[in-house]
Amino acid sequence: MNVTIINIGDELLIGQVVNTNASTMSRLLTAAGMDVCKTLVVGDVYKDIWVAVDEALRDSDAVLVTGGLGPTKDDITKKLLCEYFDSELVENQMALDNVRRIFESRGYELTPVNRAQALVPKCCEVLNNDLGTAPCMWFQSKLEVRSRKSETVPQFRPPTSNLQPVLVSLPGVPFEMEWLMRNRVIPKLQETFKTDIIITKNILTQGIGESFLSDLIEPWELSLPENIKLAYLPVAGLTKLRLTAHLPKDFPLSTFHFPLEGLYDLAGQYIVGEDCETLDELVHKTLTERGLTLATAESCTGGNIARLLTAQAGASAYFKGGIIAYSNEVKESALGVKHSTLEAHGAVSEETVREMVEGVRQRMGTDLAIATTGIAGPDGGTPEKPVGTVWIAVADATHTEAKLLQFGANRRQQNIDRSTNQAYAMLMRLVVK
Amino acid sequence: MNVTIINIGDELLIGQVVNTNASTMSRLLTAAGMDVCKTLVVGDVYKDIWVAVDEALRDSDAVLVTGGLGPTKDDITKKLLCEYFDSELVENQMALDNVRRIFESRGYELTPVNRAQALVPKCCEVLNNDLGTAPCMWFQSKLEVRSRKSETVPQFRPPTSNLQPVLVSLPGVPFEMEWLMRNRVIPKLQETFKTDIIITKNILTQGIGESFLSDLIEPWELSLPENIKLAYLPVAGLTKLRLTAHLPKDFPLSTFHFPLEGLYDLAGQYIVGEDCETLDELVHKTLTERGLTLATAESCTGGNIARLLTAQAGASAYFKGGIIAYSNEVKESALGVKHSTLEAHGAVSEETVREMVEGVRQRMGTDLAIATTGIAGPDGGTPEKPVGTVWIAVADATHTEAKLLQFGANRRQQNIDRSTNQAYAMLMRLVVK
Repeated sequence: MNVTIINIGDELLIGQVVNTNASTMSRLLTAAGMDVCKTLVVGDVYKDIWVAVDEALRDSDAVLVTGGLGPTKDDITKKLLCEYFDSELVENQMALDNVRRIFESRGYELTPVNRAQALVPKCCEVLNNDLGTAPCMWFQSKLEVRSRKSETVPQFRPPTSNLQPVLVSLPGVPFEMEWLMRNRVIPKLQETFKTDIIITKNILTQGIGESFLSDLIEPWELSLPENIKLAYLPVAGLTKLRLTAHLPKDFPLSTFHFPLEGLYDLAGQYIVGEDCETLDELVHKTLTERGLTLATAESCTGGNIARLLTAQAGASAYFKGGIIAYSNEVKESALGVKHSTLEAHGAVSEETVREMVEGVRQRMGTDLAIATTGIAGPDGGTPEKPVGTVWIAVADATHTEAKLLQFGANRRQQNIDRSTNQAYAMLMRLVVK
Repeated sequence: MNVTIINIGDELLIGQVVNTNASTMSRLLTAAGMDVCKTLVVGDVYKDIWVAVDEALRDSDAVLVTGGLGPTKDDITKKLLCEYFDSELVENQMALDNVRRIFESRGYELTPVNRAQALVPKCCEVLNNDLGTAPCMWFQSKLEVRSRKSETVPQFRPPTSNLQPVLVSLPGVPFEMEWLMRNRVIPKLQETFKTDIIITKNILTQGIGESFLSDLIEPWELSLPENIKLAYLPVAGLTKLRLTAHLPKDFPLSTFHFPLEGLYDLAGQYIVGEDCETLDELVHKTLTERGLTLATAESCTGGNIARLLTAQAGASAYFKGGIIAYSNEVKESALGVKHSTLEAHGAVSEETVREMVEGVRQRMGTDLAIATTGIAGPDGGTPEKPVGTVWIAVADATHTEAKLLQFGANRRQQNIDRSTNQAYAMLMRLVVK
């Protein structure tokens, strides 16, 4: 079934807020076997919302709308939908009970403005919003014409069901929206429409560019069955491969597997891991599972390696600490890099990065360590060590691996992001070897 | 002028990637005085992209498209635009030189697949992409019909210019897209559509909520002239005020200034700085200008304070280093926090944060230091110290300031971001006092 998402809000159109609602909704719908065909953002403008809703209902099985349900003047969605569906606002008992319950639990009086939140178009079904006062509204459209039926204007993919399209209006508050999607909207959509099963799998590759990888694995890609699609998602020195399989509703899932043997035969040396979105997630998962501890010594990455790991809940189980050794004095005092090493080879050198990684591992008493030192740019390059020159090292109790990378004169942030991913990939290869 | 943004990519529609491109583009376009009327995401599906482009060109002055320009099979934008504009693919010399330059700088051979990136529709103008191999393409549409001219189907807001609409195709890689927007696309749109002069000014406030600030400065806001608009942009514990002035193309700029006196009279105590987008940028600028050095000791922020500063070119002028003291052992060994302090008061306490900030300042020999320790969540809270409890300290040679913050049980990343901004604001107040 085809779903269109419409997120309403001026704050999205001026770029003040990143539209995480669209990605959360898309992720949940995809996992439930529905096809999100397009997502649209429009402002708090009556005409634009009307047109967006009207067009989406013509080429979708379901249209999910967020935003514009608050009690203030710029929230116009409910009034608009009432007019669009040619209905009238009536007080809904369940919605009123819900608003009253929430106000009582917060110790507030129910004002007339808030009581008005229980007014909904008579033609809709209210899905109870346990976490907030704005009602979630389910409309079965009376729309008979399911496409523009134009000979000249091309059309989006048509709806896949013969049912009349559904429109659901949800609040834009992210945690209310997500709770409603999981507990009310998706179950009811699944019940109403018959949906495919969708399974996705990520494979993280590193050390090969997207186009080289594409050439390398072409024979395998061409051998994939019709119902499995492959996408390349390059990001900061990695290429993530994403496989998506569409299976019929009654497919016996235990018998399904992605045909990965051919991929491993051709490109196994570049595969760092599966089933994670990012390398920091893979490191987090692997070290947690294996009970290995980690310390970091970062120069050019400036704390980025540590902060991506510590952004994940539970990182304290394996991450003990890090030194951001930006100046040479700190490399000496906090990591024990020898003054003579820095004098003879410079801060960006194999000798220095090895002393950094071994120093931090020893001082923090961890199983593993990572170190980086390089020239992130845009300044600080020399003919021998141009911007983008980075040394990375990883170590365990018995091995230290160091690697020189030349990223070219890229953007500073790109050099930092690539160094970070290189370091994670080297660590994974050390751990999994 | 009306702009529509179309972001192409299956990864966006399955919710694997959050669509930050839309918000970055919206922010840059809004700051340049253009109205983003809608943004649309479609998948790597020929028909859907075609319809999205076709419809957008009918009701926009400019349509900006990202994605689908890579060298792999699922990248179909270029071929589609070539057919849409009834053109043919030809090798563009500037694009080829650019691809060659980038491959040479990375030490790679130019393969046929990569050379194909220099193929562009004959009818477009190439805007050079200094940071990547995918070309940015500017199309002046031949479209005569500027709206659907339908009596029955309602329409979005119409274009505001009489010029033929423009379509620009950009790569979806965020840093390439952003560089192209700033350096190529927006200047050319301004030149083509002869837009107003737009001047913006940011004022960063901290320590007061948006609605309280709004009440406080209302008299000043009401006194602003018609051509100056005020927006409130709350982000992670800050409220950024953005003033936007629209001036006619020939306005003598040297005579213009924003009327800020009234704002400082009413809310001066909450203003941390001007003319920066973020507090890390303000800290970077201020410490660089004043020649003051900084060290950090981070527990709950996990390196985030350091990495935002070191992401900025030239940070080594003032940032000497940091300790990410995630475990108690590292707090003792690397920062000199006393074992007895941790025993008596715990890691999340005023006593500990003071020893952390003074320890790191002394050990790294800097003018200033920042320290954080807290419970980012979602686990680790106790009745006395619930999730969201954070101690932050800043120090110079003579003063140490410590502050307890209670963010409530928010999301982990939100607690990290708020702690980071609080730390920067406290540092700015210490430096500027």
